[in-house]
Amino acid sequence: MNVSNIVIVGLGLIGGSLAKAFSKYTDCRVSGFDTDPATLEEALACGAIAKAGDADDLAHADIVYLCLYPEADIHFVSNHLSSFTKNTIVTDVCGIKMEVSRGLCQLAEKGGFTYCGSHPMAGTEKHGFSASRADLFKGASYILVPCGAPESVCELLRQTAFRLGFGRSVSTTPEHHDQLIAFTSQLPHALACAYVMSPRCPEHRGFSAGSYRDVSRVANINEVMWSELFLDNRTALTEELDIFLKNLTEIRDAVADNNHAHLETLLRKGRLIKEELGE
Amino acid sequence: MNVSNIVIVGLGLIGGSLAKAFSKYTDCRVSGFDTDPATLEEALACGAIAKAGDADDLAHADIVYLCLYPEADIHFVSNHLSSFTKNTIVTDVCGIKMEVSRGLCQLAEKGGFTYCGSHPMAGTEKHGFSASRADLFKGASYILVPCGAPESVCELLRQTAFRLGFGRSVSTTPEHHDQLIAFTSQLPHALACAYVMSPRCPEHRGFSAGSYRDVSRVANINEVMWSELFLDNRTALTEELDIFLKNLTEIRDAVADNNHAHLETLLRKGRLIKEELGE
Repeated sequence: MNVSNIVIVGLGLIGGSLAKAFSKYTDCRVSGFDTDPATLEEALACGAIAKAGDADDLAHADIVYLCLYPEADIHFVSNHLSSFTKNTIVTDVCGIKMEVSRGLCQLAEKGGFTYCGSHPMAGTEKHGFSASRADLFKGASYILVPCGAPESVCELLRQTAFRLGFGRSVSTTPEHHDQLIAFTSQLPHALACAYVMSPRCPEHRGFSAGSYRDVSRVANINEVMWSELFLDNRTALTEELDIFLKNLTEIRDAVADNNHAHLETLLRKGRLIKEELGE
Repeated sequence: MNVSNIVIVGLGLIGGSLAKAFSKYTDCRVSGFDTDPATLEEALACGAIAKAGDADDLAHADIVYLCLYPEADIHFVSNHLSSFTKNTIVTDVCGIKMEVSRGLCQLAEKGGFTYCGSHPMAGTEKHGFSASRADLFKGASYILVPCGAPESVCELLRQTAFRLGFGRSVSTTPEHHDQLIAFTSQLPHALACAYVMSPRCPEHRGFSAGSYRDVSRVANINEVMWSELFLDNRTALTEELDIFLKNLTEIRDAVADNNHAHLETLLRKGRLIKEELGE
């Protein structure tokens, strides 16, 4: 199956980067939707998209990438349902899948298109089209959350992702995806925000190096999007936060109690986990 | 004042990198102490040091860099006290200063040499001479903890540091140093170890990207050294851990309670702190 017509809905960091990658690395024709006219203009001017998207583009799209927030993705499809055909493959790029895939699966059944969720494991601490770039996905993992989509559709999305620079692909259920993302992505964002709240933070210059930089990096958060993502995944995230709080409290108590042997045991445990992972 | 003779005690990551930087970027003569004959041999073979150090090298040293663990630094000076002269400048590179500077100040008075503490804000998650490199300090901050050393000695250490690639230098008291380091360096190491203890960690591949990588990086810890450093600074570190646990618990509760407004307020607070710092 040939992929020629791409529609990207929402030209933020991920949508903008997809548009730029399609235009740079493939000969697909890319049209884009965005509610901000200035963003559309910028995307046209730099060649990331060939035209502003309309109902006709949706009707002829091979793949539609929904790159809005979870609820907005569902609203967009709902509002444009009559434009989707049985040949349209719709995917989203949301960081949390249970909520959004439930909504989009229902709409797929109603509208007759094929839905297969995805999650490009790439990003930066910056937001918006101005931060987007064609090589954002270089070497990154492309997670597929098929939700019953046929393997031929998964394979098409996967091969398309590799053309955009992704380095690997894994496939799983929405539930398992969200549990892992609570740990790999959401928890680090919560840690970063809690970390920079220390009264020492504004004084760090000259007294900090890589450890400060790395832990605090993603505190530069888009709080509107991340609040929605955190709450869409609140059971799994609360569980990860509780596990983390318990483990950190154990380290805290060993420090406060001057318990050298136990502290060393706990830190060794951390090192051995990293070593076993070969990291 | 001219700096020609350098003695480095302990050729681990920091000591080895200092030796390599002195040999690469200056014409100083570097001799090195290490209890491991294989490390000494390796340092000689690659030209990081010109010779294995002895009492005579200590007696003729312009600057002695103590690069062992805090207690071991004090033992080394105590055991070689008769070799130090009134012209010797002794500095250490310990990550925590209150304990080590107290011990070395006493020895300086007894032995008649000049002590000025320092802390090169550079490192990696790897350890030992094999991880050392001449450019480790490029652009890093060189913290001075003078403890009463004359400004001429501080200036000499500072200018020497700039020759090794350091990009800036700040000066403070042992107490203030240790409070800031509890936040900028020790807390991130505790977070990294607690983070990788999640049962999800071994499954992360394919589901992780920069956030996982950055938070977990320093879990690859030298638990023997860091346990000593944590406990040498246990009052300040316990305080930072308590502040962090309180702030993270507030985020956890907002997630668990599905409190969208409060969660967004907390994440925004994190973002604004980073933004105000221009990061």
